[in-house]
Amino acid sequence: MSPHAADPHAVGERIRCPRLRDRVVSAEEAAGHITDGMMVGMSGFTRAGEAKAVPVALAARARHAPFSITLVTGASLGNDLDKQLAEAHVLARRMPFQADPTLRRAINAGEVMFIDQHLSETVEHLRTDQLGPLDVAVVEAVGITADGGIIPTTSVGNSASFAILAKKVIVEINLSQPMALEGLHDIYIPTRRPFREPIPVVSAQSRVGLPFIPVPPEKIAAIVITEKRDSASTVLPPDAETAAIAGHLMGFLEREVSKGRLTTSLQPLQAGIGTIANAVMTGFIDSPFHDLTMYSEVLQDSTFDLFDAGKLTFASGSSITLSETRGEQVMEAIARYKPHLILRPQEISNHPEVIRRLGIIAINTALEFDLYGNVNSTHVGGTHMMNGIGGSGDFARNAYLSVFVTKSVARNGTLSCVVPMVSHVDHTEHDVDVVVTENGLADLRELAPRERARAILDACVHPLYRDALQDYYDRALSRQGHTPHLIEEALSWHSRVRETGSMLAPTQAAAQ
Amino acid sequence: MSPHAADPHAVGERIRCPRLRDRVVSAEEAAGHITDGMMVGMSGFTRAGEAKAVPVALAARARHAPFSITLVTGASLGNDLDKQLAEAHVLARRMPFQADPTLRRAINAGEVMFIDQHLSETVEHLRTDQLGPLDVAVVEAVGITADGGIIPTTSVGNSASFAILAKKVIVEINLSQPMALEGLHDIYIPTRRPFREPIPVVSAQSRVGLPFIPVPPEKIAAIVITEKRDSASTVLPPDAETAAIAGHLMGFLEREVSKGRLTTSLQPLQAGIGTIANAVMTGFIDSPFHDLTMYSEVLQDSTFDLFDAGKLTFASGSSITLSETRGEQVMEAIARYKPHLILRPQEISNHPEVIRRLGIIAINTALEFDLYGNVNSTHVGGTHMMNGIGGSGDFARNAYLSVFVTKSVARNGTLSCVVPMVSHVDHTEHDVDVVVTENGLADLRELAPRERARAILDACVHPLYRDALQDYYDRALSRQGHTPHLIEEALSWHSRVRETGSMLAPTQAAAQ
Repeated sequence: MSPHAADPHAVGERIRCPRLRDRVVSAEEAAGHITDGMMVGMSGFTRAGEAKAVPVALAARARHAPFSITLVTGASLGNDLDKQLAEAHVLARRMPFQADPTLRRAINAGEVMFIDQHLSETVEHLRTDQLGPLDVAVVEAVGITADGGIIPTTSVGNSASFAILAKKVIVEINLSQPMALEGLHDIYIPTRRPFREPIPVVSAQSRVGLPFIPVPPEKIAAIVITEKRDSASTVLPPDAETAAIAGHLMGFLEREVSKGRLTTSLQPLQAGIGTIANAVMTGFIDSPFHDLTMYSEVLQDSTFDLFDAGKLTFASGSSITLSETRGEQVMEAIARYKPHLILRPQEISNHPEVIRRLGIIAINTALEFDLYGNVNSTHVGGTHMMNGIGGSGDFARNAYLSVFVTKSVARNGTLSCVVPMVSHVDHTEHDVDVVVTENGLADLRELAPRERARAILDACVHPLYRDALQDYYDRALSRQGHTPHLIEEALSWHSRVRETGSMLAPTQAAAQ
Repeated sequence: MSPHAADPHAVGERIRCPRLRDRVVSAEEAAGHITDGMMVGMSGFTRAGEAKAVPVALAARARHAPFSITLVTGASLGNDLDKQLAEAHVLARRMPFQADPTLRRAINAGEVMFIDQHLSETVEHLRTDQLGPLDVAVVEAVGITADGGIIPTTSVGNSASFAILAKKVIVEINLSQPMALEGLHDIYIPTRRPFREPIPVVSAQSRVGLPFIPVPPEKIAAIVITEKRDSASTVLPPDAETAAIAGHLMGFLEREVSKGRLTTSLQPLQAGIGTIANAVMTGFIDSPFHDLTMYSEVLQDSTFDLFDAGKLTFASGSSITLSETRGEQVMEAIARYKPHLILRPQEISNHPEVIRRLGIIAINTALEFDLYGNVNSTHVGGTHMMNGIGGSGDFARNAYLSVFVTKSVARNGTLSCVVPMVSHVDHTEHDVDVVVTENGLADLRELAPRERARAILDACVHPLYRDALQDYYDRALSRQGHTPHLIEEALSWHSRVRETGSMLAPTQAAAQ
């Protein structure tokens, strides 16, 4: 028996299926099930609940005996795992999302083939054999039920379908994740086509599945005991600009209520991961809205701030990703929060069917948007991957209201986040209802492109770039067209960054 | 009583609600309900089942007494109605789709504000007061039931929600549309949020609603009797290139069957409107597939060719748009086809929930696509609107398999439909699974952008442009990035068209 399983009492409590107790092995031994060329599915979504020991063992092994795999996860991993795996050249292919600087460099250098995919779609492709077969699933758990059911930790992500569809399953039981997480998860898997039935989720609160992942115990090939914690969130606290963005959005929503389009409880909220979306959610604390619900992917600090402020009645997500302080507080008090929380498979948290049904208000972050409301949320300069589209497309396309937020400039004002034409499109004009910067909010609903351009010029663009953008638009108008552009100049702001490091005109840059 | 209602017997048969019979008026009188600044919803989807008399009366009136309205329809209108309305300057705003050359010119000149919208979304916005209020609905019908229910004709489109949500309804009873159409329609309206229930459609065959539009009879302000037929489809017969496209797709689907991913009955098929998609559907006649079903928007000649060939068991759509000959045959034999047909509101035919549930194989037409599989289906040269996105986004995003088809070149080879970067994005790389030209098919599923580029260069691009595209890609690769581009050159092919009328290099163009 592995030295990790030194406390047989703790392990016995966590593995309630007696015949699985002899499957406990070291991470190295478990990792032995994974060999060159395999497709491996691992738990982990927005730095929460990832398998923590087997990936480290894989990277260690690859350093002296090179091999590579296709790694599929829920979303991003914590604990520098993508970094270690990329540095050890374990990753031939990676999907559907990542957020690691080292892996990002390898992707942009063409060393790792990265498939940037809507988060709701990956297991749909696996289930229909368009992707796969999946050789091994590695899933973090708080424990295993008497029947062999796997109880996830701080994320569900794609873990359920990975475990169900893989030939073999490795379970990492993490003793640092409280057993009190049991009962938080709602594992529902859509029925097979052609007899697929409606997904019965009709509100954020709907419980429609099992509190564990049902897997035949004989498929569990190895169990590893770990104690490493989730990485803390890297989200920064709100600042003046993110507070201004939140303020614009609150004002807009209040006007929607006064027009009778929304009630003061709004509709279920989704917020993308990151500093700006988190800050916007924090903005609801001092708002007139109440009895709010969330139907989102990642639940961040702001979710628990809203619970504590008495603003939020229920939150459904696929993961919980918190700062260090917040993480400790929440895990200590998890029994108190649990009646108001559900974690679902990302296929269900992000499902087009449920998103359209519930009428989600979706708030996601843009890298840049253009005069006509097209949004780039993935590519720097049109070429270099940042993180990936994540769930933003799942939500934006199907939401009741699709909001994109960004600061109006980046890199000390040398980049405008409002440009003539985005250098890469992740969300088309058809899927973007509202755009917000610290300068203001443009409501693009039911507007033609020329009207959208005027709204964005009036409200969103930074003063440093307003004249240049207005000049571009005026000259583009002279060429006519439904969506006026000077096609030879449309991406010139991005070319200028390549040449000069700034989108500012040379005279302006000199004056800065 | 109007002279149009000259045959009281025919009218009596069609208007079964006796107290509505005295609402029959002339088109001019009915059009009097529509005044300057109103928002008006009219029936009509892909030239089928549009209100035919009131729009003509509106255009006639505007010629001597100018006024303008916001016109919302299902999709495109037939009988040159958009042309007449545009010429008479009746249209201040128009949504969500059109396909008329005169209106297109007015849109591109900025005279008509055109909102190019996913076809599933318009009534969702109306119902939630994001769009509207709708002053008048004008709906073509074969008749009115004893309780005042409106029985649509050859399209449902948005007619049901228009009639339900408008303050007043004008019904055009078209005597040229056979009464035998009754029973073809399935009118289901999603329940109101926050208590919206799953849409119970679980197969193309599911009948879940009423065979008529339920409207309180007192809301029917006027009835107009017409006899004008639907316009015939403008779809061209298959040619060598569209047959080659169909052949590549059939070969691909056969390989999917041999891999066990699909059965020989495939999954419900959707095909966009137009010559290429219609030709591709015709390709199923001589294929090994059988017991096919369609869950689509428009049912074209090919649908009935497939019925007659014994290949198709059921077709669900939102309209029937046929060539002149096919139209006469089908309408004569409609009783025979009816058990195998359903026409639904476009909100349901195109609903993300149903499309994802059924696992649709979606086949839509691209104007151009790029090295990485981004698709432009609306904008010529990145600026000038062709028709609109229609339902292509509703289907592409949520389909099991999202296929885009186009000939590899247009305008005698002066335009390549495979370009370094599309000049406008309607469908992002994330939503495009397969692209096909007459040269070949590229299966982009689970590929990283560099792999997609190689597949597209190998299979799709026309020989005239292959070297230039390969050269662009090779030079872009030297800059690295997840999605390699020469950002200053990415749209240069489109700039060259503006300057020289051709994407060919000047030397090549001279040699042509």
